[in-house]
Amino acid sequence: MSRTLSATRRGRESRQARARAPTAKYPYIRRRLPTVELLSSEAVEVIEANAETILEEIGIEFRRDPESLRLWRAAGADVRGERVHIPRGMARRLLATAPEQFTLFARNPERNLRFGGDATVFSPVGGPPFVSDIERGRRYGTLEDLQNFIKLAHMAPAIHFSGGCMCEPMEIPPNKRHLDVQYSFFRYSDQGCEATPETAGHAADAVALAQTLFGAGYLEAHPVVLGNINSNSPLVYDGRMLGALRQFASHNQGTIVVPAVLAGAMGPVTAAGCLTEILAETLAGMALTQLVRPGAPVILGSFVGAISMRTGAPTFGTPEATQMIFATAQLARRLKVPCRSGGSLCSSKVADAQAAFESAHTLLPTLLAGVNLVTHAAGWLEGGLVASYEKFVMDADQCAMMQQLARGMDLSERGQALDAIREVGPGSHFLGCAHTLANFETVFYQSNIADYSSFEQWTLDGRLTAEQRANRVWKKMLADYQDPGIDPAQDEAMLDFIARRKAVLTDAIEDE
Amino acid sequence: MSRTLSATRRGRESRQARARAPTAKYPYIRRRLPTVELLSSEAVEVIEANAETILEEIGIEFRRDPESLRLWRAAGADVRGERVHIPRGMARRLLATAPEQFTLFARNPERNLRFGGDATVFSPVGGPPFVSDIERGRRYGTLEDLQNFIKLAHMAPAIHFSGGCMCEPMEIPPNKRHLDVQYSFFRYSDQGCEATPETAGHAADAVALAQTLFGAGYLEAHPVVLGNINSNSPLVYDGRMLGALRQFASHNQGTIVVPAVLAGAMGPVTAAGCLTEILAETLAGMALTQLVRPGAPVILGSFVGAISMRTGAPTFGTPEATQMIFATAQLARRLKVPCRSGGSLCSSKVADAQAAFESAHTLLPTLLAGVNLVTHAAGWLEGGLVASYEKFVMDADQCAMMQQLARGMDLSERGQALDAIREVGPGSHFLGCAHTLANFETVFYQSNIADYSSFEQWTLDGRLTAEQRANRVWKKMLADYQDPGIDPAQDEAMLDFIARRKAVLTDAIEDE
Repeated sequence: MSRTLSATRRGRESRQARARAPTAKYPYIRRRLPTVELLSSEAVEVIEANAETILEEIGIEFRRDPESLRLWRAAGADVRGERVHIPRGMARRLLATAPEQFTLFARNPERNLRFGGDATVFSPVGGPPFVSDIERGRRYGTLEDLQNFIKLAHMAPAIHFSGGCMCEPMEIPPNKRHLDVQYSFFRYSDQGCEATPETAGHAADAVALAQTLFGAGYLEAHPVVLGNINSNSPLVYDGRMLGALRQFASHNQGTIVVPAVLAGAMGPVTAAGCLTEILAETLAGMALTQLVRPGAPVILGSFVGAISMRTGAPTFGTPEATQMIFATAQLARRLKVPCRSGGSLCSSKVADAQAAFESAHTLLPTLLAGVNLVTHAAGWLEGGLVASYEKFVMDADQCAMMQQLARGMDLSERGQALDAIREVGPGSHFLGCAHTLANFETVFYQSNIADYSSFEQWTLDGRLTAEQRANRVWKKMLADYQDPGIDPAQDEAMLDFIARRKAVLTDAIEDE
Repeated sequence: MSRTLSATRRGRESRQARARAPTAKYPYIRRRLPTVELLSSEAVEVIEANAETILEEIGIEFRRDPESLRLWRAAGADVRGERVHIPRGMARRLLATAPEQFTLFARNPERNLRFGGDATVFSPVGGPPFVSDIERGRRYGTLEDLQNFIKLAHMAPAIHFSGGCMCEPMEIPPNKRHLDVQYSFFRYSDQGCEATPETAGHAADAVALAQTLFGAGYLEAHPVVLGNINSNSPLVYDGRMLGALRQFASHNQGTIVVPAVLAGAMGPVTAAGCLTEILAETLAGMALTQLVRPGAPVILGSFVGAISMRTGAPTFGTPEATQMIFATAQLARRLKVPCRSGGSLCSSKVADAQAAFESAHTLLPTLLAGVNLVTHAAGWLEGGLVASYEKFVMDADQCAMMQQLARGMDLSERGQALDAIREVGPGSHFLGCAHTLANFETVFYQSNIADYSSFEQWTLDGRLTAEQRANRVWKKMLADYQDPGIDPAQDEAMLDFIARRKAVLTDAIEDE
């Protein structure tokens, strides 16, 4: 080691590390770790039985969407008004046609993603109206911010998917926004992306834009977008989301059916109660995708937290949420569908220790549980109200560590290192031994955020916090961004489609 | 909820929360979670076989302690000079007399602790020469600082054990320091404590002081202190530590045999290689305790990290360290001895997001792995050079969350909450339902560090970070400290013993 780590080089590298942009993109994770099951089989069976009781006895409301009611009636459910009572076992049986795993095709085939099985995919924060960085503070998101986050997600090695809408471009009228958002995803990155439709119209536009890019026939056999479908917990789906679900499923595009349940508000104040509600809602929503088109790809999602019983505000990274993440993955595996959960959720207003504790207590369980799609894995602050530039690159660094963890332990001769122990023997050290010199450059993940220098060096360097170092990293990344390029004809076709759609849409807060 | 959470009360409680001292002490953890095994049985067997190869072929050096060599020779080991070659399987066989679980008796019987089995005990940082808080910065530790940390550990609900020496009282000559340290533990808290002897003399003083307090006969059947025994990795025990080990074992006091291995420095640059070395060293050290006194309580310890291949500095909370923590607990369970590992380790110089990420990636795996004694669980900063007041209370809050997680999921009727779901039904909310009102005050752990208020309220409150809020918490705790009291005769006896010992010790850097 002495030949590689002179004091000079150490200092220089330490300073360089502070603005080091990551380079090579990782493929999505193929786990070589066991999946951790925290819930006993007895507990799983109680939750599953109670979910069936909810479906049959209480029922789920499918509001303002007669087509969904028609499908349920035809399937043999007991439909009373908008309330659908689903006989025990029916939803589970309908789900048998859903694929256990599926591929989402990207513009760049090297970035195609598998969902399900031993695959794990990290995807950034979705949905915040605000963005923040430590210089400009907290402010409304813009299209430029969104495109910046798309570029960061494109570059971050362990962010495999471009996610949903990392921030709302608030300057664009809400009923036209989805067009610019979807275009930006397709244009500034060649990895796969999610759509976050709020209506059937949004979903139809997302599908049409994807058809423009990939060809209409291609989509019938190749899912290229994933639509995020939220229930209105407890026990309701509304017509807007149902329209979007039917649009995506009918075109063989993927859907993620995800209740957003904060214990004590949209769900009971206990983990088992919330899981029961989540399972009932996802069973109903996922079964509906199969009624629309058997075989349509669908993911069981959970978004879990609890409300603070002191302030009523959402909390994340708590023990209850950790348990619900583990349990969601177990429930999905028993249904043989891919699972979405977790992320880097937190309540903190800044990327401080609270943010990191809460995020780590969400992300590590997510990885250990074997969740397949990890949304909100990077950039989330303040209960999801804010997409933070600094938090984004800090979380992306953590995701890369999780990917390293998922590789499992190296048990090759190199990993066992018995010869190294023989070579060094008692009372010496491994700094300069042959095994260390042969392997030290590749063997550990090198964080681009963490500072490992001495207190004295760190003081000389200005006593920066992780958040301050992260500020340098995202700026360097944006400066280094390389456009993946796009066929000009495809680009023009997408822009033409958007212009035609915008011409018929009047600026509005909502649309149908 | 509306009847309990008026806006006024919410604001008042939010402000109060910022300096809320915890109240009720928790008993040590009895896990109701499965233990997570990340290592395959194949991997475990490879590591165990390689450890036996090390013991037999390379051997372990027991330096400057003829008595240890005599014990090994008498047991049938192949002793060449100070190098002991231990035949395959011998160490493991000798360990059969070590207890699978044992109780450590405290001054307050309610705070007796179990080590082993389903028990987990959290213990604070040990060993730093420096302390820090955000007002006075980083400075050498003093006896007053140590006593402050003992008081904080005494009060923090989920810090079950007073730990080792939270900071070195640097103003006291090193060869007398252990007396004031051990007295402070016995005097300012009535929970159990560790001793961190550096020599046989220190260990003898710790035992003698304990005999003064508990009675000499009592100790023979009741372990009351745990001695931390470090090997000099790789593959060496020195005479000072061996003397301490023999002192503790011969008096039936507990020992923790713990190599401190940073991958790439004291161990190979791979996780499997380090684990092999750790297992070989702990097998040899623990077996020696049984040669000294069969049945003496002993704990298998690991302290794991890696050196940064860029700066040579220690790193913590990395994927490799996470794997080694899981693996250590697995290896200990197969040996049927309690395990010590983990903690809230980090490299960061401040209690920022880096510190929290690294600590969480150490603490959560420790809890999931089923580690029995979690040292360094609170207060650790900067690779263990610094005990931080703010980090202490932040970590203690995390420990309490881990304790909540270890309770497992409530599957009682209350936990299942099916009646609550029936009561609320589709499209409503759980804020005011009977189940929520009956349970919300007790059901979730309430952090005393995390801020869950709105951005606006947080701004009004001065935009504090977690570290800044923690500053208020530890001050409030110290102000609220209540002396557990001590029998004046016992106190006098201890002080008298210390005065007599100090009278015969000349101030010195080292002693024997």
